[in-house]
Amino acid sequence: MSNLVNRQWTLANRPPEWVSESDFKQAQADVPDPGEGQILIKVTHVAFEPAQRGWMAENPGYMQPIPIGGVMRSMAAGEVIASRHDGFKAGDKVSGMFGWQEYTVVDAAGALLPVTKLAPGVTEEMALSVLGITGLTAYFGMLEVGQPKAGDTVVVSGAAGATGSIAGQIAKIKGCRVIGIAGGEDKCRWLTETAGFDAAIDYKAENVGRRLRELAPDGINVFYDNVGGDILEAALANLASLGRVAICGAISGYNSGGLPPLKNYMMLVLKNATMGGFLLGRFSKRFPEGTAQLAQWVAEGKLKFAVDVQEGFENVPATFLRLFHGQNLGKQLCRIA
Amino acid sequence: MSNLVNRQWTLANRPPEWVSESDFKQAQADVPDPGEGQILIKVTHVAFEPAQRGWMAENPGYMQPIPIGGVMRSMAAGEVIASRHDGFKAGDKVSGMFGWQEYTVVDAAGALLPVTKLAPGVTEEMALSVLGITGLTAYFGMLEVGQPKAGDTVVVSGAAGATGSIAGQIAKIKGCRVIGIAGGEDKCRWLTETAGFDAAIDYKAENVGRRLRELAPDGINVFYDNVGGDILEAALANLASLGRVAICGAISGYNSGGLPPLKNYMMLVLKNATMGGFLLGRFSKRFPEGTAQLAQWVAEGKLKFAVDVQEGFENVPATFLRLFHGQNLGKQLCRIA
Repeated sequence: MSNLVNRQWTLANRPPEWVSESDFKQAQADVPDPGEGQILIKVTHVAFEPAQRGWMAENPGYMQPIPIGGVMRSMAAGEVIASRHDGFKAGDKVSGMFGWQEYTVVDAAGALLPVTKLAPGVTEEMALSVLGITGLTAYFGMLEVGQPKAGDTVVVSGAAGATGSIAGQIAKIKGCRVIGIAGGEDKCRWLTETAGFDAAIDYKAENVGRRLRELAPDGINVFYDNVGGDILEAALANLASLGRVAICGAISGYNSGGLPPLKNYMMLVLKNATMGGFLLGRFSKRFPEGTAQLAQWVAEGKLKFAVDVQEGFENVPATFLRLFHGQNLGKQLCRIA
Repeated sequence: MSNLVNRQWTLANRPPEWVSESDFKQAQADVPDPGEGQILIKVTHVAFEPAQRGWMAENPGYMQPIPIGGVMRSMAAGEVIASRHDGFKAGDKVSGMFGWQEYTVVDAAGALLPVTKLAPGVTEEMALSVLGITGLTAYFGMLEVGQPKAGDTVVVSGAAGATGSIAGQIAKIKGCRVIGIAGGEDKCRWLTETAGFDAAIDYKAENVGRRLRELAPDGINVFYDNVGGDILEAALANLASLGRVAICGAISGYNSGGLPPLKNYMMLVLKNATMGGFLLGRFSKRFPEGTAQLAQWVAEGKLKFAVDVQEGFENVPATFLRLFHGQNLGKQLCRIA
């Protein structure tokens, strides 16, 4: 394999606030032959998520930071081109934590996540969105932390994003009334016309607090938050008695050197309410259950998913930035081969 | 009864920040004869709790404010001196929301809480502390919101106060290791020597964050908070994985025009943790269960309770202020007859 050259995107800086393309640097590396039990993968699709912004920091809090000069950590999909592991053979399509690079040689167990073979009929786009960690995050976050019950009013922020769009539809499947908060008319239209949300609030054009009071006059039973900041404050101010807040993420704070402190948390007392955070790893033993259920809902047409696919290895850093400017509808991907 | 004069303490002002004695005003009223179904009670003991500070505000959020000129709302105990209700007779000892006054004529159902006859062997001090709403708050807040499991490390703030001291002992009964946070050597000694806490942190003399790291190196499984502010931040920073925060109150903010916003709430995500607030009324159907269990623990000597009893009707407002200056150990009461 020594004739292959592996282009990589490495971390050049830890930006204190806004991330930019100059925080990443291209590098080249040789491609080693796979050792016993290892697999050589040609990466075809890179997946992006807001959590990666945290991994660029000195102290992400729940995992090792990406070292300066290290390949940018990332979920990705690809094709096995050589294998010295019995479970994989050339031509297999796989997903895993392959990083921003064209090739990788990995143990099947993976450094952070095991390498997963795509099931028949599952595309790279599905494996990296609704049937991958994105879908699982929505599944366990909504059902286990949010605990929606039929008839509940459920509000999702970042609702046209990869996780939010799935989380809201899961609440719909469970018989809830679902309101999505997203930025812009196109996203809001997609929520109500394609994803089946009952209502959408365009936070760029509308007053979120006032619209929540209008659309949820009896209060919010479940708030699934991807955004933090003012939108979280507005949701807390409109909680129903015994409401649940599931904190999945807080993208509004990821490029501003930290989140603003939370003002309305005493609403938890006044409303006998609960706010729970979660990391997906907590539910790892139940991933097969989650994946099977998500796949069934997709097959039954109950769960729509959207992907925004950019093109080209050169465009990987720029594609990442789309997340923080709210440019993606659904899962942000970049096809690099 | 027309020869009786009822001295009362009424609300004179809604102080924006620190409450003082001048926010209350003495008044006198006639004592009406009880009507059909009513009871005339001579109030003997007034009970104080931080929540009363909130009831003085324009908008307490979960109940009506005390009107300006109205009798200060308060739990109290007393003796029935005339009754036109079959369930009560002269000489019965009772507790209820009787207010800061020497006499009251009430319906047995009470405006906010039913009038409760003290069981045989139950003193006014017990009825207003461990066997009253204070004990019930600790019972349901710790067990239902905190959900302590044997072996857990449990931290209680305001631990030498009425609710905190009971909450911590309940966690001990459930097999937990319990650390109390209180102000001053005497309170800390009482926690470890009398109430059986495993350790105490004197927040007036020690760095709470550092002491929590030392005393709970594997993190806090349950934090029961009465204080808010810096102490809540320190506890959040030291949560264990899957930790629970039960917010009972936030006395540090009651006299400063509001609580400071919360910085460390994203620890809920990093630690897969939950923060829940509660109002006691949520558990009202289970009060008999709670009271019976608390009484049994007291009878078995497993649950110690402390009362701080001041004297005299004139001293009622000054006694209330003791709560906010951390002067009480255990339940703050004032005997007025």
